[in-house]
Amino acid sequence: MKVIESIAEMRQLRQQLREPVGFVPTMGYLHKGHMSLVRQARNENKSVVVSIFVNPTQFGPKEDFKGYPRDTQRDLAMLEAVTDIVFMPSVAEMYPEGFDSRVEVGEITGRLEGASRPGHFRGVTTVVAKLFNIVQPTKAYFGQKDAQQAVIIKKMAADLDMNLEVVTCPTVREPDGLAMSSRNTYLNPEERRAAAVIYGSLKLAQERWSEGERNADRIRKEMTELIEKEPLADIDYISIADAESLEELDRVEPPALVSMAVRIGKTRLIDNMVLE
Amino acid sequence: MKVIESIAEMRQLRQQLREPVGFVPTMGYLHKGHMSLVRQARNENKSVVVSIFVNPTQFGPKEDFKGYPRDTQRDLAMLEAVTDIVFMPSVAEMYPEGFDSRVEVGEITGRLEGASRPGHFRGVTTVVAKLFNIVQPTKAYFGQKDAQQAVIIKKMAADLDMNLEVVTCPTVREPDGLAMSSRNTYLNPEERRAAAVIYGSLKLAQERWSEGERNADRIRKEMTELIEKEPLADIDYISIADAESLEELDRVEPPALVSMAVRIGKTRLIDNMVLE
Repeated sequence: MKVIESIAEMRQLRQQLREPVGFVPTMGYLHKGHMSLVRQARNENKSVVVSIFVNPTQFGPKEDFKGYPRDTQRDLAMLEAVTDIVFMPSVAEMYPEGFDSRVEVGEITGRLEGASRPGHFRGVTTVVAKLFNIVQPTKAYFGQKDAQQAVIIKKMAADLDMNLEVVTCPTVREPDGLAMSSRNTYLNPEERRAAAVIYGSLKLAQERWSEGERNADRIRKEMTELIEKEPLADIDYISIADAESLEELDRVEPPALVSMAVRIGKTRLIDNMVLE
Repeated sequence: MKVIESIAEMRQLRQQLREPVGFVPTMGYLHKGHMSLVRQARNENKSVVVSIFVNPTQFGPKEDFKGYPRDTQRDLAMLEAVTDIVFMPSVAEMYPEGFDSRVEVGEITGRLEGASRPGHFRGVTTVVAKLFNIVQPTKAYFGQKDAQQAVIIKKMAADLDMNLEVVTCPTVREPDGLAMSSRNTYLNPEERRAAAVIYGSLKLAQERWSEGERNADRIRKEMTELIEKEPLADIDYISIADAESLEELDRVEPPALVSMAVRIGKTRLIDNMVLE
């Protein structure tokens, strides 16, 4: 496994990789969710590149860029056996002085996470476009946990004719259902217990859907009531939307994306489930 | 020479081209300026791809998209001997329903042409990014005639780590100095004669620079006075700017870009010269 910090060197080594090349972009502090992406990349390709880059431009001014958890040594140890190249550029390498370009997707970036985090997806699409151009993967892997991000990256790749396949991989969960996230590390034990209500509300939606409920408002209302019973939880949004356009639905038609952002104490967590 | 209309087919044929691949994106209605780009691409590469696409998104609502001159048969005849692939997609192929992404460069796109034509460069950078992704050239060729466009494309390619070299080629001129442009066809004989004042004013700037004049205002003023003597000419802007940042200069420091947009009758023409 080679650990590369320079774009020029990454490009050069890319030429020597066996095709096809799978790519997993991450912000590090890896968990089982990331590793499931890396394993899928490993299974489907001859070479695997993983990037670790905590991208400042996708954090809002009041968000947790500085405090975002980092542990490079542990990350590299986890990747060692399954990765050919770890690309780990500095912020100055990715955004040299005078950097002034961006890649943006339109309407779908204004909804859900985009409504709560203005500018977030512009940061994501710009850095992912750069990483795609540097790594030139055959396939790139994203987690369903960040459902809107995956939809937006697919849209960007299709609209801009990027020459790769974007693959979405299932969310990996803790035994109580909490979706794996680097931000779970922010939770104290009491908050960690409370956070299970998020998955609980998604299971509730799934149940109602299976029972034949098609009224989105009624499902949203039941989810809201369940979460509001948890004193440590504070709902940012609960959405039942078309899984591609991300437009809110009145009547639930598959595939529908049930997604949410909930604060547990000070930690903002997101999760989702697709009704099919 | 193959003439391709579909993105999928272009991608497929791309795999069979001998490296390196030179690419000349055009809006068709080819003239000697375009052909000088194609010839340079031919000289520097094993394969040459030329695109012909009148890109609607770079025209303003009151601009000449519909009337923009087109003559595909003549274009193909001119390219026949020197081109491997002509990529000629339809608008629907490039912008299918629901298309909603864009590539943008920041500050330098707001100046000069960008100030006069809001949204123009967003249309240019987005379509050029798409074409680069489809054609995947080793080198792409742009004319110095569209100086700001060339600077912006270079900036986009550098900022977004596009894996190609952007080459700028010298402006090709008519015997009286008028820069070759597809829009010259709009000029009636009287306007055509009057249009020579544009190059005349650039030569004047060059002369003053050679004589040691370093005060940008004085050079702009002399250029303005010369053009105002021509009754058919109407100045949109005259700029003396840093050749890279495109910031207006008080004191001329090389390399400085002297550039201008002038209406001759109803036809808006641009031209420029670099003082080095």
